[in-house]
Amino acid sequence: MHPSTTHLVNLRNLFRAEGIDAYLVPSTDPHLNEYVPATWQRRRWLSGFTGSVGDLVVLTDRAALWVDGRYFLQAESELAGSGIDLMRQGEPGVPTLAAYLNQHLGQGAAVGIDPRLLSRERYRTLATEIEPRRILSLDNNLVDAVWKDRPPRPAGGLTPRKPDLCGARPAARLETLRTSMAERDCALFVTSNLAEIAWLLEARGTDVDYNPLALSYLAVGRSVLHLFVDGTSPQALATHLGNGLVLHRYDEVSTVLPALIQELTAETPPRIWLDQTSASVWLFGLLDGAGLILDESPLRRSKACKTPRELEGMRACHLRDGLAMVRFLHWFHHLPDKALPRERELAAAIDAERAKEPGFRGLSFNTIAGVDTNSAVIHYGTDRGTNAPLANGSVLLLDSGGQYDTGTTDITRTLCRGQASPAVRRAYTLVLKGLIAISKQRFPQGIEGIRLDALARQHLWNQGFDYSHGTGHGVGAALCVHENPPGISPRSDRGMPLLPGMITSLEPGYYQEGAFGIRLENLAELVLSDPTAPATSFLRFEELTLCPFEFSLLELALLEPAEVTWLNAYHHRVRTELAPHLSHELAAWLAEHCAALDIPG
Amino acid sequence: MHPSTTHLVNLRNLFRAEGIDAYLVPSTDPHLNEYVPATWQRRRWLSGFTGSVGDLVVLTDRAALWVDGRYFLQAESELAGSGIDLMRQGEPGVPTLAAYLNQHLGQGAAVGIDPRLLSRERYRTLATEIEPRRILSLDNNLVDAVWKDRPPRPAGGLTPRKPDLCGARPAARLETLRTSMAERDCALFVTSNLAEIAWLLEARGTDVDYNPLALSYLAVGRSVLHLFVDGTSPQALATHLGNGLVLHRYDEVSTVLPALIQELTAETPPRIWLDQTSASVWLFGLLDGAGLILDESPLRRSKACKTPRELEGMRACHLRDGLAMVRFLHWFHHLPDKALPRERELAAAIDAERAKEPGFRGLSFNTIAGVDTNSAVIHYGTDRGTNAPLANGSVLLLDSGGQYDTGTTDITRTLCRGQASPAVRRAYTLVLKGLIAISKQRFPQGIEGIRLDALARQHLWNQGFDYSHGTGHGVGAALCVHENPPGISPRSDRGMPLLPGMITSLEPGYYQEGAFGIRLENLAELVLSDPTAPATSFLRFEELTLCPFEFSLLELALLEPAEVTWLNAYHHRVRTELAPHLSHELAAWLAEHCAALDIPG
Repeated sequence: MHPSTTHLVNLRNLFRAEGIDAYLVPSTDPHLNEYVPATWQRRRWLSGFTGSVGDLVVLTDRAALWVDGRYFLQAESELAGSGIDLMRQGEPGVPTLAAYLNQHLGQGAAVGIDPRLLSRERYRTLATEIEPRRILSLDNNLVDAVWKDRPPRPAGGLTPRKPDLCGARPAARLETLRTSMAERDCALFVTSNLAEIAWLLEARGTDVDYNPLALSYLAVGRSVLHLFVDGTSPQALATHLGNGLVLHRYDEVSTVLPALIQELTAETPPRIWLDQTSASVWLFGLLDGAGLILDESPLRRSKACKTPRELEGMRACHLRDGLAMVRFLHWFHHLPDKALPRERELAAAIDAERAKEPGFRGLSFNTIAGVDTNSAVIHYGTDRGTNAPLANGSVLLLDSGGQYDTGTTDITRTLCRGQASPAVRRAYTLVLKGLIAISKQRFPQGIEGIRLDALARQHLWNQGFDYSHGTGHGVGAALCVHENPPGISPRSDRGMPLLPGMITSLEPGYYQEGAFGIRLENLAELVLSDPTAPATSFLRFEELTLCPFEFSLLELALLEPAEVTWLNAYHHRVRTELAPHLSHELAAWLAEHCAALDIPG
Repeated sequence: MHPSTTHLVNLRNLFRAEGIDAYLVPSTDPHLNEYVPATWQRRRWLSGFTGSVGDLVVLTDRAALWVDGRYFLQAESELAGSGIDLMRQGEPGVPTLAAYLNQHLGQGAAVGIDPRLLSRERYRTLATEIEPRRILSLDNNLVDAVWKDRPPRPAGGLTPRKPDLCGARPAARLETLRTSMAERDCALFVTSNLAEIAWLLEARGTDVDYNPLALSYLAVGRSVLHLFVDGTSPQALATHLGNGLVLHRYDEVSTVLPALIQELTAETPPRIWLDQTSASVWLFGLLDGAGLILDESPLRRSKACKTPRELEGMRACHLRDGLAMVRFLHWFHHLPDKALPRERELAAAIDAERAKEPGFRGLSFNTIAGVDTNSAVIHYGTDRGTNAPLANGSVLLLDSGGQYDTGTTDITRTLCRGQASPAVRRAYTLVLKGLIAISKQRFPQGIEGIRLDALARQHLWNQGFDYSHGTGHGVGAALCVHENPPGISPRSDRGMPLLPGMITSLEPGYYQEGAFGIRLENLAELVLSDPTAPATSFLRFEELTLCPFEFSLLELALLEPAEVTWLNAYHHRVRTELAPHLSHELAAWLAEHCAALDIPG
């Protein structure tokens, strides 16, 4: 029997007492984390579906799970026998979650939710869509009530960063925040976004996979700072943050915040700033009675525009990351033909090279090492994969990155041992042409990222190809590898300007299902272009990533002179920066792989 | 004394009786027309500012007008002595209209408006922004009450198009609309958008400058059609539209619509479809008590995707328009050096050439003929201009178009007699490179227009230049020259897909204030690219505009081989299509101006 059968029975037994006809189990957690701690992976436990994203709805007589294209096959296999219907999002005839509820529930029905798991935006949209059916917010999560061996909540605490690693003094960051607050006549800024808290306080945690974060809430007043976090040394934090810190237990947010509001209300209705896209409807509930400022958190853009210190740190860790990549590439190209490794060994090999670098703290995400048909699976993870073997002529798509003391990396290279097919070489070259086109483009400061997206796709589009992911995502500095803003994607936030000091990935790709996939990814900082007269408000990209491309995969005839010029300049820089830190043998190998190509024509 | 001084005094005298502290005078009319009929040009009459866009707010002790960058100079001169403050939108420190009201009005103050002149979206935004101040909707427009010699409302009526000119049978269009209505359980579709009405009914009018529209409202029921329009022959229209037409006077909309709602409500609450972006808050008021569907009008996308018949008509009128342009170009290049014309003569000359073409119905907008420094003024109109003289070496930016029986044209060419400066040639070539880049790009069907915008700007951006207008706007078929969708612009609607059969302008530019401006504009249709296997859902542009570019303005060294190839193919097509309809002399001249350039490299 599928394990979820029993789980669903137990869950449904609670419906009547709670007065609900359905229960929504999203994959998110109270902080809308990208990587959800095990204690909050309720949808996974309840349904058996292990993918990262997918909402489950349980009715008394049926249940359904919505997943996007990348998870169709996986969900089908994992749901088999569970009785849960698989909803393939975006396929013709597949209802939305709201449409499904409207279809199967009467007009007076109540849909139970855990208000900690829905942003206010999502809550409001759903409420409108399912009218006249009601949403019923339940204080206690119903899955927790039936999940007996639920893992405990991690409580590693927030640790101050060493002063020489900080991008800025926390006091300076707090002052900037309080200036924004004063301009808006705001008495209290509240956030549940863990990356914002870690960034503002220049402290890091270990509660979340791949992201150096601690489970916490923060409320910043004009002079006081209420931090809700477990497992943290008050002394260390007080020294780091100075006066005004009031440390609470994580759980106390539910009683302390309302009390704070009441205290502030004694004088005049206080204005509280809470980003409605990132805060849960539960958090909004705690602020009842206060006047609200619902705008984007001011920390979001501040965090995105890195300080000189952070940029220096990012450059330093990208040098180390480049050395690890070169050692891996050298190993890869010198493997004996007879005993070629499988995907998991390949992933382990690059992970091991990174781990040798000083300042390495862990991976910035689960390494993707996909061989041949697996390279065409955009979110392929080796833990879920077929562990396919490498062969001569195989395509290996390697997307990996590290967390270092001074920053975060994320790089994709597509590799091949031996001779690749003409189709692979053509696709590789089209993808590289896109990467070069966007990499060398100047553009006005302040435009939206989506406006650059087509530059990376133009050559693929002209051949009738496209890729179904974004061209670029923001990257945190010793924070989350997926940060927003900036975003260079049809799905990125509108109205969000590209600004100097931001860091983005540039990663066009090509995926031919059942055959092979190509992706090439560099991280780059956005810098002001040469400050000559008309160009002062223009930006350009400067690569952080230092790692050669594969000449053996290039179809030279498809490259324009300007593209070869860019490639030669990039390879020259890679070699110049990395060689001094490499052994003779590796430096020589790198020189060969960074040799200048002849400019055609 | 500035004439508006008296007008403002008279207007303010009405404030007390109406119970208001301020009155908003937008430049729009009840149909949100681009070209506002004289009877509704209240802001112009009241303030003396003659620009097309600019909102006026009158308080008891002050008044202010908001204009955008293109009107700063004009508004400054026209407002001088009026006592009206000029608000330069987007300049540092300039408050928004809402911020200005909040600054100068107490918390209980009332801002009077004419609800016919604000879309529901704009009304709601303003209401939120000025809270706790109130908006007071006044039934009668206060400017009308003090404007003694106000021109009468035009009433030219709606005339059915000849059957062979129609893009589709009105009955077929109505059926499609009613299918959309049925899918949404909609009892009545209401619109005040004149282009939608003209398109749906395949009828045209003469009430608005440059646009073949009639002042009207329309309410489409499941079987009946309520049309509110003056000056129209019921017989002709009944024959054209078939059964179900109920013709009302224009003014009767205010009584008939509420009665209709009441009648429908007798059974069950009727669902009424009204596009909230295009309908006024007044029109919403007439539908009180009905259930509303607020989504985008279904006619908007249908109208944008031209029928084969409409495309045929557009191609036919672009051929005629090209002939007129070639005659003009030939004349321009053969003018005697001694008696070169001024801007108004140049505009008159192209207008006259168009008027010679069969099927010509009028201009599609006021011809822009800007010489030298005037060519750098993006919305330069000869009627407001300096009527600058042409000289040898002058740059002429000529942006013009016609309304024909079968379609609408819009073309910009930048011309020069004699030798242009290297700076002009470089700018011209950068603009042309942008036009070529976007013109030859394939792209996936359904993407948003904004995603293509950078392709036209990339070469300018790389040199630190940009243009402050969009790259492309939709164009109606024998309708408005500015139609939306599609839009290839940072300001175009988000979420709006590019689809086959749409028509867009492609018009990058370069403007150096005080020196010269360049703009090059073709219209193109969006067609499915070659239906080979992977490319079936891709689109490409096919030019409608047939007119050569100026070789004398080209800096050939800046062109890539692929760009020259495109240019040669385009010129070959221009020559092949136009030559058979030209005299020997003109055909020979055209052949010279369409000669193939050598491919570099």
